[in-house]
Amino acid sequence: MRNGPYKSATRAISNVTRAMSSQAPSKAHLHKPILSSKFPVGYAVGGSHCGVKKDASVNDLGLIVSTTDSPASAAACFTRNAFKAAPVVVSQDILTKSAGKARAIVVNSGCANAVTGTQGMKDAWAMSKETDVAMFKSKATPSTLVMSTGVIGQTLPISKILEGIRASADNLGSDFAAWEQAAKAFMTTDTFPKLVARTFALGDTTYRMAGIAKGAGMIHPDMAPALPHATLLGCVVTDAAVAPKALQKALTYAVDRSFNSISVDGDMSTNDTIVALANGAAGGPELTATDPAFATFQEELKDFAVQLAQLVVRDGEGATKFVTVSVRNAPTYEDAHRIASKISTSALVKTALYGEDANWGRVLAATGSVPLSNGASIDTGKVNVSFIPSDGTSKLPVLVNGEPEKVDEDRAKEILSLEDFEVEVDLGMEGGQEAQYWTCDLSYEYVRINGDYRS
Amino acid sequence: MRNGPYKSATRAISNVTRAMSSQAPSKAHLHKPILSSKFPVGYAVGGSHCGVKKDASVNDLGLIVSTTDSPASAAACFTRNAFKAAPVVVSQDILTKSAGKARAIVVNSGCANAVTGTQGMKDAWAMSKETDVAMFKSKATPSTLVMSTGVIGQTLPISKILEGIRASADNLGSDFAAWEQAAKAFMTTDTFPKLVARTFALGDTTYRMAGIAKGAGMIHPDMAPALPHATLLGCVVTDAAVAPKALQKALTYAVDRSFNSISVDGDMSTNDTIVALANGAAGGPELTATDPAFATFQEELKDFAVQLAQLVVRDGEGATKFVTVSVRNAPTYEDAHRIASKISTSALVKTALYGEDANWGRVLAATGSVPLSNGASIDTGKVNVSFIPSDGTSKLPVLVNGEPEKVDEDRAKEILSLEDFEVEVDLGMEGGQEAQYWTCDLSYEYVRINGDYRS
Repeated sequence: MRNGPYKSATRAISNVTRAMSSQAPSKAHLHKPILSSKFPVGYAVGGSHCGVKKDASVNDLGLIVSTTDSPASAAACFTRNAFKAAPVVVSQDILTKSAGKARAIVVNSGCANAVTGTQGMKDAWAMSKETDVAMFKSKATPSTLVMSTGVIGQTLPISKILEGIRASADNLGSDFAAWEQAAKAFMTTDTFPKLVARTFALGDTTYRMAGIAKGAGMIHPDMAPALPHATLLGCVVTDAAVAPKALQKALTYAVDRSFNSISVDGDMSTNDTIVALANGAAGGPELTATDPAFATFQEELKDFAVQLAQLVVRDGEGATKFVTVSVRNAPTYEDAHRIASKISTSALVKTALYGEDANWGRVLAATGSVPLSNGASIDTGKVNVSFIPSDGTSKLPVLVNGEPEKVDEDRAKEILSLEDFEVEVDLGMEGGQEAQYWTCDLSYEYVRINGDYRS
Repeated sequence: MRNGPYKSATRAISNVTRAMSSQAPSKAHLHKPILSSKFPVGYAVGGSHCGVKKDASVNDLGLIVSTTDSPASAAACFTRNAFKAAPVVVSQDILTKSAGKARAIVVNSGCANAVTGTQGMKDAWAMSKETDVAMFKSKATPSTLVMSTGVIGQTLPISKILEGIRASADNLGSDFAAWEQAAKAFMTTDTFPKLVARTFALGDTTYRMAGIAKGAGMIHPDMAPALPHATLLGCVVTDAAVAPKALQKALTYAVDRSFNSISVDGDMSTNDTIVALANGAAGGPELTATDPAFATFQEELKDFAVQLAQLVVRDGEGATKFVTVSVRNAPTYEDAHRIASKISTSALVKTALYGEDANWGRVLAATGSVPLSNGASIDTGKVNVSFIPSDGTSKLPVLVNGEPEKVDEDRAKEILSLEDFEVEVDLGMEGGQEAQYWTCDLSYEYVRINGDYRS
């Protein structure tokens, strides 16, 4: 969690591995190593300081470039906010016109290029085109997607960024050090870079996947009079060959169950963007959505996205707890997801988690406040609520078939004092659908970071 | 606001009057005195300590009884939570079977009688029937509505309550002192009783209205190992004659624009209930929904409910600000209401209000995250955001036609340091509908009250 300044990616990520390793056996599929020396082939990446941020020792410009001859398949999930930032509009436009093809991603941190009018649109296009020229000597078809994060309502120092892009062209790499620099370029108030890599198999072939995310962190306290907003950015790239439509289908599925299933404060940004690239550099036939191996790829992508998304929650502002909210035996997945979301964003639930209080009443009230689809209604006599520790010891039922249990307060305290635990709500309904959400607690520190930074 | 222990209803309410009087001229309709010696005729009320709460110096049982020969018209708005508390189920049942007639309301605080199974249902019915017998010597038709607030998951000390009801029968009154005792019986962590009265005219006849509310306050810090949940209770009684269906129509309209338009923490309780009684004791013809005077009555009831609901926000946990959120020129009322709700419940907005930060970026992002009805979309170039002070001085535009203004930070600080101010979002869309919400800030104190009370 955010218990100190950034030391090194390795240390932070090994902390996360430790925390994950301590989860219950049912989470065994999450125990895969999240760092690997095998980054996907056919990509050149890097990060540098170009001058958006004042502090010259931190990165503010990142590049992720597919080096294959043909453009990579590309897919993306964007914010649904009506006030879409310029880079969101530009990236959407490129993907639509190219029918799901792209060659590169350029990202800047320190300025979100949001609510910046026509100048903002020009600047976002300039970032895309400058990357195309610098990397591919091409002015023809726009093929670089753009992401920005940071202060909103301010225009980019565009000449510094374009200069930075040109300077980066010869300084990209493909090893851990290069990926780490790229991951650092995504950071705003993140306390550690969020970089994950893994291998996976489709049939007899092994492929690689690497991903970067940045947290829903607000602008740094010393940046007043800034007008900040939280943003979630992420990218996942693989050397597998996946058709654009199949990639979009798998990414939508994965994002719904990962980045759309986490909550730090329940707000939706103007810049939220998750991009996937698949360049096929590792060979093999192009995967389509009707291919038998597609389901395997989709699950791999989902599990990977979940790992990345969970890092965002672990770095949540003021967070001291990492809490999994599981809703089981709901009539539909959407119902389960909506209820898990309501529990995960409830200020009453989140303050109780901070207070290490096994307050099932607040969990129940949040559950009951969600209208179910098709007019279905909860049979309150079938509902079970439990707290599940992450240390493998037995779970603590607090509501059994709608009746409150006599709770062992010492045992409750034991579980809730853990950094990781799970809140499970079983509706006992037909359909048997389930969804998970990952959330953090609401602490004094959250209020300090978001409210008190001017004093 | 919650800046000290309860002193007296008069002092607390005069503070509120002061705060209200300092609002902008457009709020002139709210300037009517909220205390009156003219309580509605034909009602006997009271409050006492019966033993639900440990502290014998505080009230935990209240009665509001219509003394007319015929039952009064009755209407109610209940929580939509799936986990409805027993008193909610019982009151709904009584109103359905009586087709909108009732004689009394009995309320206890200290225990919500929620998630209490079959015993809870028996207890809620017992409270209703005991009141019928004690007040009306009647066992025939159930005519007393029931409300409970306090800890959930615990059963009522029912024999103490029934004894209290019998003891109260001869101790009711109709003056301010009696109403004040009744209002105190609603309190849990409220720091002052919420009691409002006014007169209003329909044609040539003057009628009276009195109302009580209790805040969305959590259980008191010293009640661990309690399992608390916030609850909103309220009642409005009048001596006008209103047909049951007209009363329900007016109440639904009023509650949507008052109690359903306030936010302390955005959570919905298992017990939320607002009841209205109209006993016709002041004479006059029975008002129906097609009567020309109905619109006048409906607006009176709405304004009255707004006053009551605002008292709840002013007593919000940890609140230091009372903020009106106005959304104007939306395509429909529902769209305006949803956007106002989203802004009012955003943790990012509420912490910025606490930090006295004119953070229009967070307001805009919350606005843009709400999908509009009928697939309508916001034209970002027409959106205006302003901060409006409550002292009558000029408003501060921060976003004009989608373009950020160069904000005068000193002036922003001046407005946001007020206890009362307004955030106005003008969407500039056809339809011209508007909605208001009332909210408070999210402070350290909120986290302490709801998270830290065990330490």
